[in-house]
Amino acid sequence: MSGADFLAADWGTSNLRAWRLGADGAVKDSRRFPWGVGVLQPGEAAQKLKDEIRPALGAENLPAILCGMVGSAMGIAVAGYADCPAGGEELARNLFRVDEQTWITPGLRCVRPDGYPDVIRGEETKVLGWLTLDPRRAAGDHVLCLPGTHGKWVLVRDGRIHHFMTCMTGELFAVLSEHSTLCPGAVPSEPASFAEGLAFGAAEGPLASRLFTVRARMVGEGLAGDKAASFLSGLLIGDEASRLPPLLGLKPGATVGLMGEPSLLGLYEPALRARGLVVEQADGEAAVIAALTLLRSVGVPA
Amino acid sequence: MSGADFLAADWGTSNLRAWRLGADGAVKDSRRFPWGVGVLQPGEAAQKLKDEIRPALGAENLPAILCGMVGSAMGIAVAGYADCPAGGEELARNLFRVDEQTWITPGLRCVRPDGYPDVIRGEETKVLGWLTLDPRRAAGDHVLCLPGTHGKWVLVRDGRIHHFMTCMTGELFAVLSEHSTLCPGAVPSEPASFAEGLAFGAAEGPLASRLFTVRARMVGEGLAGDKAASFLSGLLIGDEASRLPPLLGLKPGATVGLMGEPSLLGLYEPALRARGLVVEQADGEAAVIAALTLLRSVGVPA
Repeated sequence: MSGADFLAADWGTSNLRAWRLGADGAVKDSRRFPWGVGVLQPGEAAQKLKDEIRPALGAENLPAILCGMVGSAMGIAVAGYADCPAGGEELARNLFRVDEQTWITPGLRCVRPDGYPDVIRGEETKVLGWLTLDPRRAAGDHVLCLPGTHGKWVLVRDGRIHHFMTCMTGELFAVLSEHSTLCPGAVPSEPASFAEGLAFGAAEGPLASRLFTVRARMVGEGLAGDKAASFLSGLLIGDEASRLPPLLGLKPGATVGLMGEPSLLGLYEPALRARGLVVEQADGEAAVIAALTLLRSVGVPA
Repeated sequence: MSGADFLAADWGTSNLRAWRLGADGAVKDSRRFPWGVGVLQPGEAAQKLKDEIRPALGAENLPAILCGMVGSAMGIAVAGYADCPAGGEELARNLFRVDEQTWITPGLRCVRPDGYPDVIRGEETKVLGWLTLDPRRAAGDHVLCLPGTHGKWVLVRDGRIHHFMTCMTGELFAVLSEHSTLCPGAVPSEPASFAEGLAFGAAEGPLASRLFTVRARMVGEGLAGDKAASFLSGLLIGDEASRLPPLLGLKPGATVGLMGEPSLLGLYEPALRARGLVVEQADGEAAVIAALTLLRSVGVPA
């Protein structure tokens, strides 16, 4: 019965994916749009939702639940942050109501194991879906890694997000590639150099000193730009993969979920395996659909 | 006797300081010029030396010994790299002769304790002078720290530079301040935030994750830009000060020499003391003068 259908959207800085879903999460229709909030002007996201996205999915008068950076100052409205620990109940209770038929999921705020605050916006929905899709995750500790520009490592305890740590590996790589004396502008494309960087990422010493070896080899040995970029990518991911898991209690032999773009999974899976972790890839799209379906059922008036 | 005088210059990317010295290193005259090689066009450095620097110091026909980035592709000529271990004898033997009366000191190349190559250009001369100025440093291991854009930590063993590690803390701070989502453009001016960052610099975990706390606090707590910049500066310097000294064998209670710009000394001295090191500030100008005087006496025809 189409009366129970709703519109769901994963609306981030760079990407926008929207679905028309049944009350049980069945996908009736789906679309991609080139309107990550990072490319929109203020006010434009709300207009796009009304004029383009709802009509494209025949969802002019259906409830809509959106997640991601659409809930920030760049998007439709600032949806705020709920506090950890948080599961489906806390996220549903903190849904931000934009208008009669539009809701945005809240971000989450936590205190990290190192005592510092951290924030997340968008990934909390994927983690909720990941939890929902596998009942084994309802008890005990589980960790999900979502690599990216601001990659997230999320510790789930007894079915709720307990805390998380952001690792800005992607941004650091981009900033160093584009604006530093290290391999300016080159594209990583050398698996052997990536693997070498990965191993060096686990070595002792300040990152700023290990980073400089990229420059020293370009100047002293004529290391080519693509190899330098691959080594740099491996070094940064290796630093993350070797140093972050222990902070979330992961020891060699432990299982970690991994969710993200295929291009990143291909870099992170070997990095995590090299640290003795068992990697279980997880489907981000299925997770968003499961989470928004759950939130619709418990948090949004029918 | 002015016949034994010579021209000495410390000619880096950003700064140029030149002296007319006696054979014994006595300063007869000195000038600063606004022509770091970073602001000059190709070929311009050689022209400035001939048309401006030599005449300003009455040194048209005197031998000149130059050190620093003037010996790179940005400067007058590529002066090459000598290999470590290297002391005064090796540096003198590898002086690069530009013309009948102009020499440039070579850079140095080494293999670091972590097995990776490193390079230095300019600081080798300061280290040589630091050795020359204190006979106690002729035997045993000594460490000199020269903080900066590409800061150097140099291990001297029995009077020669044995190896060194570059730490690009200054460049990392600049790139993150200007091009990342962390405190874009703000100036560090908050001692308390710097001290807090310094402590967090020594904490476990990947640097990319500790860095993100700057962003999380700006977004979640409204941390102001100047405090964020100070915290970031402390975090990066704290990472260096806590993780690099052990790689050169420095334990708490050990002495480390510290040479550089006063503004940086004021940041690094507390950082190193906080790690239990005994800091001995060293005079960079006196070191360059002592080193170039030594090189003139052993390496340059009278």
